[in-house]
Amino acid sequence: MIPLEIRVLYGDTDQMGFVYYANYLRYFEAGRGEFMRARGRSYRSVEEGGIKIPVVEARVRYRAPALYDDVLRIETTLSEVTGATFQFRYELRRKADERLIAEGETLHACLGPAGRPVRVPKELAELVLD
Amino acid sequence: MIPLEIRVLYGDTDQMGFVYYANYLRYFEAGRGEFMRARGRSYRSVEEGGIKIPVVEARVRYRAPALYDDVLRIETTLSEVTGATFQFRYELRRKADERLIAEGETLHACLGPAGRPVRVPKELAELVLD
Amino acid sequence: MIPLEIRVLYGDTDQMGFVYYANYLRYFEAGRGEFMRARGRSYRSVEEGGIKIPVVEARVRYRAPALYDDVLRIETTLSEVTGATFQFRYELRRKADERLIAEGETLHACLGPAGRPVRVPKELAELVLD
Amino acid sequence: MIPLEIRVLYGDTDQMGFVYYANYLRYFEAGRGEFMRARGRSYRSVEEGGIKIPVVEARVRYRAPALYDDVLRIETTLSEVTGATFQFRYELRRKADERLIAEGETLHACLGPAGRPVRVPKELAELVLD
Repeated sequence: MIPLEIRVLYGDTDQMGFVYYANYLRYFEAGRGEFMRARGRSYRSVEEGGIKIPVVEARVRYRAPALYDDVLRIETTLSEVTGATFQFRYELRRKADERLIAEGETLHACLGPAGRPVRVPKELAELVLD
Repeated sequence: MIPLEIRVLYGDTDQMGFVYYANYLRYFEAGRGEFMRARGRSYRSVEEGGIKIPVVEARVRYRAPALYDDVLRIETTLSEVTGATFQFRYELRRKADERLIAEGETLHACLGPAGRPVRVPKELAELVLD
Repeated sequence: MIPLEIRVLYGDTDQMGFVYYANYLRYFEAGRGEFMRARGRSYRSVEEGGIKIPVVEARVRYRAPALYDDVLRIETTLSEVTGATFQFRYELRRKADERLIAEGETLHACLGPAGRPVRVPKELAELVLD
Repeated sequence: MIPLEIRVLYGDTDQMGFVYYANYLRYFEAGRGEFMRARGRSYRSVEEGGIKIPVVEARVRYRAPALYDDVLRIETTLSEVTGATFQFRYELRRKADERLIAEGETLHACLGPAGRPVRVPKELAELVLD
């Protein structure tokens, strides 16, 4: 598990006083970016190598509201790799009290240089074993 | 089904050249806002009446990329109302070619004036029957 | 002047209950997109023609808060074209009461296919005369 | 000067491959939040004390594009305090090469508990002297 800390911006909240529900997908992106970077295969370098990994499905379960200025800790795991797709899993907790704020998953496809689906490259598939 | 049209902003895209995955949840919000407004019970008026309906779960399945300047049509249905929660369902299509871009669901709770869970108010539950 | 109407999303607000200050630049983008589209030279087509027009300076003056569900009318004018730059001007009003919400300017450069600054293409410069 | 580092998200970029122009105002917000926190008067605590400091004017000058995964360093200074307003100034640099990415200013008003303009509270005005 690779943790990453993010501080909630004022611009992340909405008039209910909580983080707007779409912004958790931004936090998840930060989490998987950190996960890959920590394993030595940053998403930037994967994309520069001609592989794109768009999200084909996303799920979020909102457990407790995150507030402005909260520091959130994102834990990301690579939970599953099948032929052409792989899945990240996320847990988001408030650092101050360890409260579970949200959890979810994103399922990704692999697109090769021509924009066509390709098998998950070995260098990505190996991440799940690390 | 209440349709709503939205034009993709440049700011909605990312460097892959497609709409960034979190922004579909913004489109879904626009869809359910239009759904409620068309039924004469705008979310603004519901909230002014002391009821908040935060999202407790969200799911998106990305079927085809939406591009800058695309006009998207969102069709929203209220698919389920149980005791304290209700669920919207969304289909997002590109107007030009009717291509399915994304679909998904959001599950909502009802919070009363004290921020406590309450049963879905009759005026909201009735929307499902309309 | 080309008007465009935009409805404020819940996700555009922040916990102050007003539209978050960065989002007005999204509204401005919608305004200049509509301006160009109405003149028959959509930004999409300009960019497909190999010209990019990044923003080099932006200014916003916030006059009154915009609220959730407000319908805003954006009026965009092309106020100035010099050798290699041009400037759009924006006025944002609440449709219900014509109240001035925000005004501002964006200054743009022209980049050619190689990413190098080029003179404002004639087809763009002519827009200011229309 | 209080520096803060921010890593550019994929969701911050647009299809030009650069950070979308509105998002710099989010970075500026992060900068002034860090500035106030470092001086022991977090914006959260100021707001909890009944004072709001909405932005009344914002300016950004875009000097060089920021890219996905770039680490940016924001330097924030409180540049001016007059009777009822105060101004922050920002410089955003890419950490890797110290390149100036953007600079700008935000001018803020002070609103008291009733939402009325009030003089800049002494505790905020003193920050400029620190």
